[in-house]
Amino acid sequence: MSGNGKPSANGGSDREIAARALPTPKSVSPEMQKLVGAPPRPAYKLRPKTAEEWRALVDEAAAPIVAGLPALCERLAVRYERTALDDVRAFSVVPREVAPANRNRLLLHIHGGCYVWNKAEAGLPEAILMAGFGGFKVLSVDYRMPPEAFFPAALDDVVKAWTAAATMEDPRGMAVFGTSAGGALTLELVLRAKSEGLPLPAAIASGTPMSDLTKTGDTFTTNEMIDNVLVSREGLCQRAAEYYAGGHDLADPLLSPVYGDVSGFPPAILTSGTRDLLLSNTVRVHRKLRQAGVEAELNVYEAQSHAQYMFDDAAPETQEAFLEIARFFDRRLAR
Amino acid sequence: MSGNGKPSANGGSDREIAARALPTPKSVSPEMQKLVGAPPRPAYKLRPKTAEEWRALVDEAAAPIVAGLPALCERLAVRYERTALDDVRAFSVVPREVAPANRNRLLLHIHGGCYVWNKAEAGLPEAILMAGFGGFKVLSVDYRMPPEAFFPAALDDVVKAWTAAATMEDPRGMAVFGTSAGGALTLELVLRAKSEGLPLPAAIASGTPMSDLTKTGDTFTTNEMIDNVLVSREGLCQRAAEYYAGGHDLADPLLSPVYGDVSGFPPAILTSGTRDLLLSNTVRVHRKLRQAGVEAELNVYEAQSHAQYMFDDAAPETQEAFLEIARFFDRRLAR
Repeated sequence: MSGNGKPSANGGSDREIAARALPTPKSVSPEMQKLVGAPPRPAYKLRPKTAEEWRALVDEAAAPIVAGLPALCERLAVRYERTALDDVRAFSVVPREVAPANRNRLLLHIHGGCYVWNKAEAGLPEAILMAGFGGFKVLSVDYRMPPEAFFPAALDDVVKAWTAAATMEDPRGMAVFGTSAGGALTLELVLRAKSEGLPLPAAIASGTPMSDLTKTGDTFTTNEMIDNVLVSREGLCQRAAEYYAGGHDLADPLLSPVYGDVSGFPPAILTSGTRDLLLSNTVRVHRKLRQAGVEAELNVYEAQSHAQYMFDDAAPETQEAFLEIARFFDRRLAR
Repeated sequence: MSGNGKPSANGGSDREIAARALPTPKSVSPEMQKLVGAPPRPAYKLRPKTAEEWRALVDEAAAPIVAGLPALCERLAVRYERTALDDVRAFSVVPREVAPANRNRLLLHIHGGCYVWNKAEAGLPEAILMAGFGGFKVLSVDYRMPPEAFFPAALDDVVKAWTAAATMEDPRGMAVFGTSAGGALTLELVLRAKSEGLPLPAAIASGTPMSDLTKTGDTFTTNEMIDNVLVSREGLCQRAAEYYAGGHDLADPLLSPVYGDVSGFPPAILTSGTRDLLLSNTVRVHRKLRQAGVEAELNVYEAQSHAQYMFDDAAPETQEAFLEIARFFDRRLAR
C-alpha cells in the first residue's frame, strides 16, 4: 500500500493494492444486486483456438438468449421479423405502440458481443428493450462476424445497412445505438460516414464502447476482477476482438475509435457503470467528444459492471437507462 | 476471486478481490500522472482527539496553500480581498478581465475540506481557478467550521451568505459551486433554500460531493486505497465530517444530501474521476437529480482520485474541468 512502487510495464511506477472483500452494495435495486453480486463469469479465462471452438462458444451463449426472446417480446410488447438492408442481414423490431412523436423516426441498432457473439436473434435483446421502453421503430443489423468474416466486414455491413436505412426515413429523424462492440461500431460508423460523405444520424448512443483495443484505460486495472462480466482486459472478450481484427493494427480508429477524429459528430449519449472494466474507455470517449465541441451526455450507473444496464428488463435501472437514451433521442431527432 | 463469498456486514455476500499492482496510467497528461501516481496521503490514518490536535492539522495543511496563493493569482490573473456577506466572513475573488457576458453575473463559491479544513484564504484556490478560467466574479464563503462551530453552523453561514449575495445581482444570473464538502454544502444550500422559500441559483456545480456520510456507495469499496486523496471511507475525512456533525444523525439530508428531495433543483453539473472514492456518491446524486427530472450533467475524468481536477492549474485536465463548468453556467445564467 505504499507508494514506493516498482517500475511497471508501461514505464510508470506501480502501487500495490492489497486484497479486499467486495460486498454487494445495497445502493442498487434488488434486481441489480443479483447481477452486481454474481461471481465473475468463468468464461473469461477461455482460449478458443479454432473456428469450431469459437462457434461452439457462440452457439452455447446464444441458446438461452434466443430461448428468452418470446417472453421478453411479450413483456415489452414488441415483435420482430427478419429483413435486409441492402444485402445485409437485419431485423425489424417494432413496438405494439409506436409513440406518436416517433412515427417518422427510425433507430439503427448495432448489437454487442466483442465482434464475435450475438449473431442473428441473439443480438436482439437491446433492440427489443429500446423499442419497448422508448416506443421506437428499430432496425437491428445482423452484421457478419468471425469466423464467417473478419475486419472490416462487421463495419462494412453496418455502413451498408446505415446507408440503406437512411433512405427509409429522413436521417434527421434517425439515431444509431449499441453497446460494447456495438457502441464501438456506432462510433466507427460515424467516422466512416464522415469520411465517405454519407448522411450522419441526428444522434447516437454508445454504451460502454470497446473504444480502445490497445488495452489502454485506467479502469482496465482498477476494475479488474471487480467487473464480473468482462473480468479482465486479458480476458475472452479481448481475444474475440483480436480474432475479429485478424492481425490489423489495433490502434486503427476503426477498431479503437477513441483514436478517431470525432469533430462534427452528432450529439452523443454514453452509458457506463462504476464497476465497468470499460468505464475509462467510456469517459475517455466522452472527454474526447466534449473537447471537440460535440454535445455529449454521460450516465454512469452505481455499481454496474460492463453493460449490466441491459441484462434484466425487470431491474428499474434498466428502464432508467433506456428511458434516458430515449429522452436524449427525443430531444434531438426531427419528427 | 470466486463468488462463493462469506456473508458480509451489510447482509450480502462478499467476493474476494486479490492484491494487484496499480500502474500510473499514460492516458492522462504528464501533470495529471504526477497527481494520479502519487502514494496515498498518509494522513488518512490520523485520529486527532482534541480541538488542539484538529487545529494543528488544519493549520499545517493551510500553510502551503496560502503560501502558493500569490503565484496562483498571478498565473490566473485574479485578485481577492476580504469582504462579508451579512455577518458571514467571505472573500471577493475577481479576474483581471470579467468576460463581457459575465458583467452582471455572480458566482458563490463554497470551499471543500471535509467541513474542517481550508479556513480563510486556504479555501480560495477553487474560487481563483473559476474566476480565472471562467472569467467570473466570485464570492467565496469562509464559513465557520469545527472547532469554532459545529453542525449546522457551516450550512447556516452558507445560507446567510447566499441570501445576502442574492440581493447583489439577479439570482437568475447567479450560480453556486463547490467541491467535496463544498459540493455537499452546495446541495444542502439548495435543500434549505427550497424549504425556506429563498431564491434559487440559476445553476449549481457540485464537484465529487460528500453526499453520503453513512458510508454507503460502492466505490467506497472498489476504490479503497486506489483513491490516493481520501484513501478510505474509514479515513480522516470521514472523521472530520463526523466531528462537524457532532453526534447529529448522519443520514440527515443536510449532512447527506443524497437523501434529500431534489425535485425543483436548478440545472446541475457534477464532476468526478474514475479513481474517486466518491464516484458512487457523485453518480448517485446525478441519478437522483435525473430521476426527479432535473437537468444534470456528469463529467468523469480518467484516472483522477477525489477532487484532483483542482490540484494543479498547469494540468490541462484542470482547465478542461473548469471550462466545462463555466460553459455550463454560461448557457444557463441570465446576463
